[in-house]
Amino acid sequence: MLKEAVYHRPKSEFAYAVDENTLHIRLKTKRDEVTKVTLVYGDPYDFDPQKKCWISTQKEMSFNGSDGLHDYWLTDVMPPHRRLRYGFMLEDGARTLFYTEKGFYTTAPADSSYYFCFPFLNQADLFSPPAWVNDTVWYQIFPERFANGDHSLNPVGAAPWGKSEPAPESFFGGDFQGVIDHLDYLEKLGINGIYFTPIFKAPSNHKYDTIDYLEIDPQFGDKETFKELVKQCHHRGMRVMLDAVFNHCGFHFPQFQDVLANGEASAYKDWFHLHSFPVKPESPPNYDAFAYTPLMPKLNTANEEVKQYLLKVARYWIEEFNIDGWRLDVANEVDHAFWREFRDTVKQIKPDAYILGEIWHDAMPWLQGDQFDAVMNYPLTTAITDFFARQTISASEFAHTVTAVRNRYPETVNRVQFNLLGSHDTPRILTRSNGNTAVVKLQMLVQFTLPGTPCIYYGDEIGMTGDNDPGCRKCMIWEEEKQDREMLAFVRRLIALRKEYRFLRSSEQLAFIAADDKEDVIIYKLTHKKQELLVFINNSGQEKSVAIPASYQSRNGLNIWDKEQVKLEESLHLPAYGFLVFLVEQENRDVI
Amino acid sequence: MLKEAVYHRPKSEFAYAVDENTLHIRLKTKRDEVTKVTLVYGDPYDFDPQKKCWISTQKEMSFNGSDGLHDYWLTDVMPPHRRLRYGFMLEDGARTLFYTEKGFYTTAPADSSYYFCFPFLNQADLFSPPAWVNDTVWYQIFPERFANGDHSLNPVGAAPWGKSEPAPESFFGGDFQGVIDHLDYLEKLGINGIYFTPIFKAPSNHKYDTIDYLEIDPQFGDKETFKELVKQCHHRGMRVMLDAVFNHCGFHFPQFQDVLANGEASAYKDWFHLHSFPVKPESPPNYDAFAYTPLMPKLNTANEEVKQYLLKVARYWIEEFNIDGWRLDVANEVDHAFWREFRDTVKQIKPDAYILGEIWHDAMPWLQGDQFDAVMNYPLTTAITDFFARQTISASEFAHTVTAVRNRYPETVNRVQFNLLGSHDTPRILTRSNGNTAVVKLQMLVQFTLPGTPCIYYGDEIGMTGDNDPGCRKCMIWEEEKQDREMLAFVRRLIALRKEYRFLRSSEQLAFIAADDKEDVIIYKLTHKKQELLVFINNSGQEKSVAIPASYQSRNGLNIWDKEQVKLEESLHLPAYGFLVFLVEQENRDVI
Repeated sequence: MLKEAVYHRPKSEFAYAVDENTLHIRLKTKRDEVTKVTLVYGDPYDFDPQKKCWISTQKEMSFNGSDGLHDYWLTDVMPPHRRLRYGFMLEDGARTLFYTEKGFYTTAPADSSYYFCFPFLNQADLFSPPAWVNDTVWYQIFPERFANGDHSLNPVGAAPWGKSEPAPESFFGGDFQGVIDHLDYLEKLGINGIYFTPIFKAPSNHKYDTIDYLEIDPQFGDKETFKELVKQCHHRGMRVMLDAVFNHCGFHFPQFQDVLANGEASAYKDWFHLHSFPVKPESPPNYDAFAYTPLMPKLNTANEEVKQYLLKVARYWIEEFNIDGWRLDVANEVDHAFWREFRDTVKQIKPDAYILGEIWHDAMPWLQGDQFDAVMNYPLTTAITDFFARQTISASEFAHTVTAVRNRYPETVNRVQFNLLGSHDTPRILTRSNGNTAVVKLQMLVQFTLPGTPCIYYGDEIGMTGDNDPGCRKCMIWEEEKQDREMLAFVRRLIALRKEYRFLRSSEQLAFIAADDKEDVIIYKLTHKKQELLVFINNSGQEKSVAIPASYQSRNGLNIWDKEQVKLEESLHLPAYGFLVFLVEQENRDVI
Repeated sequence: MLKEAVYHRPKSEFAYAVDENTLHIRLKTKRDEVTKVTLVYGDPYDFDPQKKCWISTQKEMSFNGSDGLHDYWLTDVMPPHRRLRYGFMLEDGARTLFYTEKGFYTTAPADSSYYFCFPFLNQADLFSPPAWVNDTVWYQIFPERFANGDHSLNPVGAAPWGKSEPAPESFFGGDFQGVIDHLDYLEKLGINGIYFTPIFKAPSNHKYDTIDYLEIDPQFGDKETFKELVKQCHHRGMRVMLDAVFNHCGFHFPQFQDVLANGEASAYKDWFHLHSFPVKPESPPNYDAFAYTPLMPKLNTANEEVKQYLLKVARYWIEEFNIDGWRLDVANEVDHAFWREFRDTVKQIKPDAYILGEIWHDAMPWLQGDQFDAVMNYPLTTAITDFFARQTISASEFAHTVTAVRNRYPETVNRVQFNLLGSHDTPRILTRSNGNTAVVKLQMLVQFTLPGTPCIYYGDEIGMTGDNDPGCRKCMIWEEEKQDREMLAFVRRLIALRKEYRFLRSSEQLAFIAADDKEDVIIYKLTHKKQELLVFINNSGQEKSVAIPASYQSRNGLNIWDKEQVKLEESLHLPAYGFLVFLVEQENRDVI
């Protein structure tokens, strides 16, 4: 047995509290080697001198997928006194090994101190995202490009709506009134959460270069209009999330201008990370900045005044406008200490606010309950686009990557991750898919069936195209004849199904049944209590006959797409880039 | 190459900030397989389209020991903009592989997004223990048993000092005046930090069952005497650390008594974790408690009133008595959120206070800069006692365990870990060593030469014996004729050497040169800049001839124990349970 491949660590994504009574315990072993893993455990304070072995209980763990190199195992356990001492019994058919904090043993160590320790399940440390996030389908709006509802606010030189391709410095005049005007459209689409990229006073079209975090940019409207917008969204059951650009400010932020003007004498010199005086906004600048751009000076979030200013901002838009969440720009470059205070501040005034970090990489250090509720799940985005759109990875590589990303975080995190196919920072999904709408639909199906909350980038639902910024920031197309209405119907159906089947929003188990590299076919299932959803996907341009796994043959399934009841046969046909989704009831399933 | 054995994760003990400019990067590979590891890295925002590969810099990593299954590698890096994107080039002689966040590649991926990410080195997140801890040799005092300086305070029924073996309920009348009376002794011993087990009002002899956290137990003296004690300690350059028993209170804590008396109507019912009413102090109790004991009700540290009460306690003893540190009892069963507030509170009023957690297991979740400065390093204690005292593990198992424990934490943590050979919760080291004083000396030598700060349990320095509680809590022996004066001289010498050689207190690299299972001999070296300390230890009852590694032969070494300059030959002789320690200057060493 390959001991070198076995890994576990308490109080990490391998051992975490699911609720106030339940722990999840995971284990990693070499792929295709260990055949059975049993969690052996007891209370740390149970000592029975009569018993040779200290362990009081055993529970078999479930196989939870493979990432290509490793297999993952999972089980839950409810320790009666919320304390757990535990180890793992590994079997490979030939040999049995016990894995503990102190290493491997052929027989279970009698001394309880050898075992792993989850000392106490304290409710205060629970990872506790808002309950509503699970039920949310997000829609991302780049306000300058969604709809122009009030031409009187148009910035000087604003181009006519959609008549030209956007350039980096273009303005088209999108505003809040435009959003209000199209709330019917969004409601009919079915989304129930809007994420707005920045709306605060800033000179650029993207507004990531904030001048004043307490003011709305006048090109979008005034505070009254924004208040009205939030009210109308709430009235329609939609949440509103704003973009907090706290890593850096804009060049014209008055405090930074003061530093430029007064140098070392400026009252704001400690608001930034200045390397020398005079402060030179060259490239590269002599101060910390976002990337190397002198136009976006990094804020010193450890400075007490900066902290109080930004926390005031965090409170203000919740208290005065009742927004429901904050998306945190460049979140991983800001210190953890700041985010902890940010979370405390936000949750104190709105306990069910959603805190979403922009982190493109492994983000576990921010997802331990004390900072964010979720991050933008770009590693999943990449896996989906690599397999479907770019076709640079195989079916099995896709399955392995999805499994790897999932096992990087607790399941409690996975359930509220922000799953996106694209954003204002990527090419549009249709462009990435070389214009193949069928392939886009497959990706959306995957996005809507995997654990997490999906987000639609404005316009993707009507087949808009565009490469990286500025291409992906075109004006929303409102002329119905120019919209891909079939795509729109498809997305509406997806959203409706997600609402209809509660378990699509709260599935606790995902398993790949097949990932066929030769046929480019994947089959996976979602499990929730006694229901299973079987998803068959053909990621090739040829029609495929796909074998149905033996255990499902002759079973009844509901094709949830067209509501047809079918008896599952030995195989089924999938058209090129086709899919089928069946709901199957399981009788005798161990519910985890 | 065994990919399954390779492990790295950013923002963990594998990648952490050492100071405001420097990161440590570690990697784990299969033991004895990879021959060379190179860190490849660059700034995340450097994109040079001219270059095929994004990586701008390479640095070879140092081999950093083996835990038996894995090899560890380490290097430091100072990213100019405090941002790092990086990967690893692994070579085994036959093959080269690149290891990134996305997996393994035979050529370095051109896309920087594939690499690991340390997004930003923010000073606010630095792990920053007090600078003085490195220079401290601790001495643990169990006040009831150290010295009786004021007989007027003797508890009723106190037994004559040292005339009988202690029983679980014994009292002997140790007090603060007794400590004050013996500060000369402690100063001559050379220690410069005292850790007191609890001193607050409590009925038991150990005082872990607090009645009032704001009062001194009258058997120890009054606040004036304690203030005088702290003052005199500080005058002699000794720090004072108190024991904070915040996981649970004592049965007679008035707030708990109120709950017993008034049940659901008690104003304090939310101060505890009560399961039902009436509250029944049976075994097991119907409330959360330490272990199963009804006499130690667990405090609800998430309750705002409890929090404010305990934080007031944390402040009070610093503000009024100027103590220098808190040792936190059963620290791992209290919620992380509480400890974060505790740290903020303590560091705000005394930035260089030391916060030490009692955690017997893997404690990384508490050592990330936001909670503790160190934990009681019991895993090291176990490794040392298993090898030397119990002889249950071999030389190589000892070396592997020390390496494993060390690589479980950042080096910044290792430098201030609280290294102990025993405490009021374990048998005494001499008893564990079956009375063999030579073996005790070897263990102390190891304790004083490994990274971390050593702590002497009162009386170990004069050869006191005793099994687990109550045996290890005997009265301190003050009659010189009954003390092991040779042991005392040995400990004094050890402490003096630690003070003389600064690098014994701040060694940054520990490496095992040999761990000979057959001969029971180990050789290790500590490296600091251009100096090396070579430690030769014979853990057998026979005299041994030990080969000196070729690279040290013919070199000059200073035997720091007797200050003799010697030329290192091909071998040296170690008597039974003997040791030799040489200081060697290295000319051409890469300083990490």
